[in-house]
Amino acid sequence: MHRFPSPLLDGYRNFMDGRYIEERERYRALAENGQKPQILLIACCDSRAAPEIIFGSRPGELFVMRNVANMIPPYEPDGHFHATSAALEYAVQSLRVKDIVVMGHGRCGGIQAALDPAAEPLSPGDFIGRWMSLLKPAAEQIQSNDVMTASERQTALERVSIRNSIRNLRTFPCVSILEERGKLQVHGAWFDISNGELWIMDAKTGDFRRPDLEEVVSEPEQDVVAPPDA
Amino acid sequence: MHRFPSPLLDGYRNFMDGRYIEERERYRALAENGQKPQILLIACCDSRAAPEIIFGSRPGELFVMRNVANMIPPYEPDGHFHATSAALEYAVQSLRVKDIVVMGHGRCGGIQAALDPAAEPLSPGDFIGRWMSLLKPAAEQIQSNDVMTASERQTALERVSIRNSIRNLRTFPCVSILEERGKLQVHGAWFDISNGELWIMDAKTGDFRRPDLEEVVSEPEQDVVAPPDA
Amino acid sequence: MHRFPSPLLDGYRNFMDGRYIEERERYRALAENGQKPQILLIACCDSRAAPEIIFGSRPGELFVMRNVANMIPPYEPDGHFHATSAALEYAVQSLRVKDIVVMGHGRCGGIQAALDPAAEPLSPGDFIGRWMSLLKPAAEQIQSNDVMTASERQTALERVSIRNSIRNLRTFPCVSILEERGKLQVHGAWFDISNGELWIMDAKTGDFRRPDLEEVVSEPEQDVVAPPDA
Amino acid sequence: MHRFPSPLLDGYRNFMDGRYIEERERYRALAENGQKPQILLIACCDSRAAPEIIFGSRPGELFVMRNVANMIPPYEPDGHFHATSAALEYAVQSLRVKDIVVMGHGRCGGIQAALDPAAEPLSPGDFIGRWMSLLKPAAEQIQSNDVMTASERQTALERVSIRNSIRNLRTFPCVSILEERGKLQVHGAWFDISNGELWIMDAKTGDFRRPDLEEVVSEPEQDVVAPPDA
Repeated sequence: MHRFPSPLLDGYRNFMDGRYIEERERYRALAENGQKPQILLIACCDSRAAPEIIFGSRPGELFVMRNVANMIPPYEPDGHFHATSAALEYAVQSLRVKDIVVMGHGRCGGIQAALDPAAEPLSPGDFIGRWMSLLKPAAEQIQSNDVMTASERQTALERVSIRNSIRNLRTFPCVSILEERGKLQVHGAWFDISNGELWIMDAKTGDFRRPDLEEVVSEPEQDVVAPPDA
Repeated sequence: MHRFPSPLLDGYRNFMDGRYIEERERYRALAENGQKPQILLIACCDSRAAPEIIFGSRPGELFVMRNVANMIPPYEPDGHFHATSAALEYAVQSLRVKDIVVMGHGRCGGIQAALDPAAEPLSPGDFIGRWMSLLKPAAEQIQSNDVMTASERQTALERVSIRNSIRNLRTFPCVSILEERGKLQVHGAWFDISNGELWIMDAKTGDFRRPDLEEVVSEPEQDVVAPPDA
Repeated sequence: MHRFPSPLLDGYRNFMDGRYIEERERYRALAENGQKPQILLIACCDSRAAPEIIFGSRPGELFVMRNVANMIPPYEPDGHFHATSAALEYAVQSLRVKDIVVMGHGRCGGIQAALDPAAEPLSPGDFIGRWMSLLKPAAEQIQSNDVMTASERQTALERVSIRNSIRNLRTFPCVSILEERGKLQVHGAWFDISNGELWIMDAKTGDFRRPDLEEVVSEPEQDVVAPPDA
Repeated sequence: MHRFPSPLLDGYRNFMDGRYIEERERYRALAENGQKPQILLIACCDSRAAPEIIFGSRPGELFVMRNVANMIPPYEPDGHFHATSAALEYAVQSLRVKDIVVMGHGRCGGIQAALDPAAEPLSPGDFIGRWMSLLKPAAEQIQSNDVMTASERQTALERVSIRNSIRNLRTFPCVSILEERGKLQVHGAWFDISNGELWIMDAKTGDFRRPDLEEVVSEPEQDVVAPPDA
């Protein structure tokens, strides 16, 4: 019998009885005035790395694009359907986000597939194979290394993938131009599912390090609700 | 000066001090044994419609693909990069999800753009224009209708878009075959940002109605952690 | 003018006025009865990674061998002078240590030299060059990888070096035999100078992870003073 | 069951809760700017004579090479692996230390073995036998002396061993040249485990005497953190 998943209905009921009540006014304002998120967050579909949970975000804060292995293909204005490029264009050109964060995570299944030399297509279309081929040159270099453990190779490619997405991000004129003008910043982050650690990318070196949370200065929340005239 | 967005670091600190502590064991198990989500949720990037918030989901429950206007392009095994098809293929063929939910929402900016006859490309690449053209025939029909209000047209296309995505979903052999075998169910849902209402699609008619939450029988949570041998 | 380094004399005076007083009886017993350390710790000479500081050790606890990059050459009974093999043999055969820990650390100068393709000999003898050539095959694989950052390559080789030393440790019959008999355990550890993190090696996979210090059950200190008859 | 030694984890936890907190900034600077120790300290592996404890050293101060009986083999550029020569070369040529201290100690097991005419090889490789043979000529002279007590012979050889290492140190061109130029000083020291006494070697005569600690003029600590451009 066809039935809407009851875990979703249960969860929704809890949402309406709890969090929605706290956020009611916020949702109403966000509906009337439109969204005005400051951040585009590009993440993986993985069920263990939901950005709104990891960053404890409230409605209106994050514009979130999610695909397998949080990848950005290079700029390719060829008239095809580009889900990722479309989301990027909309966030940067229409919403005018101030920050783009590419967040990867540990134990990523897509990365694992990219490192598996014996990986078979999952279907005749081999969409995952094609998609992960965006990382092929890097994956091959890391695959051929037999002094690092499988897990070390996996983490290495997860981080390469973030740097790769950021490199491709910058092939989009709207990103590179706004970044040069100081109106947009691009960031990398990596979440360790096994222990909850967040690692952020050093903009200069590309290395990942754990942020010093003591250093964080809480700021008055930026207005994420667009004014009515928006 | 380049700086990781402090709202994210603030939120992450709260996550680590609170929710992570409750979920520590769950994250650890999900890392060791892998994810085993039962549901693929296809949603919009909109900052006001985060699935994990609306459905109060826990880590490991939802495999979430998000793009602009929660759309699925038709099956097109042409060797290009297909973020959406790749996520779909991975969820169905590798994770073996039992349910696919396409969730749209009110006030969707992508739908709004699709209904704007005067919409200009946001960039020379016009990625959003191309992406939303997946809805062009429907959008034109609704656009030309001058007896419905702008808001009615918007909501109408939002729901058409969900049915359209579900139709395209079924052009993927892996989806139609598993659905026929009763191993996979496809669902539609629509979230009203302004008042928090969730509407779900009737599988037969395609109409949207509000679920009777009283009817929902809470079930013991399904196991979303794969056994070690998985 | 020839003068014993005053920082050492200053430090020694502080030791005699403070810590020595607390440990006086312990030193006396260790002198009369001999040492009976349970652990052989193989570490790097680096001034930033002193085992007794990192592990807050007391006199008599750690038998410490330190060389550049904490390396163990393979078993080579050729009659030459082998500082490292001699220390290993003495700890295992004479002191009968129960654990051997190979501890590497971040920012290791020896590893850095091994990864520098343009490294010049530091002297005609090129002792460092020869010594680091113990890692040559691994270093070359990692060197040739240009998708990881310099810092990622450095960390990768630091960990490979620990696994390499452990592999060579097991080429010593006294180690492999006692290990098989369950009388000796071999461990890997890596210390991050920049933030004080200690990572320990998983004996099965060779991966490094941070230990859960909450899990540590403090034990009554083992007797590290040999009985008089020793 | 394989388990990382809990005394080390206990000690590390204490380190992180205490001393690390005081030294946090120092570790960070030492990581970012590199080490710049002024002193190479050559010591024994003995668990009762840890240099950092005896000299109350802070991170970054001492580059410490430890082997059995704190010995330096003579300069032997033969292409073999020389742990000790490599550490010496690195400290002198790359770190440019200003002082080299060879520290012996009482009750040294290696020296005891060298003085035992009936000493059996500890293993077929007889690495300790070979290693201690560096002292053979001196050991034989002292062994054959039957008017000194066993304890006197032991102390005598411990001190001979320090002078012997210093003599061998000077067979390394990099040491002798820099010493002649007044850029490097070589020192001897001997630590009495039984009562904590430190004895230092007179550079001219080679005799050991206890330093007059009242004479020591505390100096502003030398900078042991390399400048960023280092």
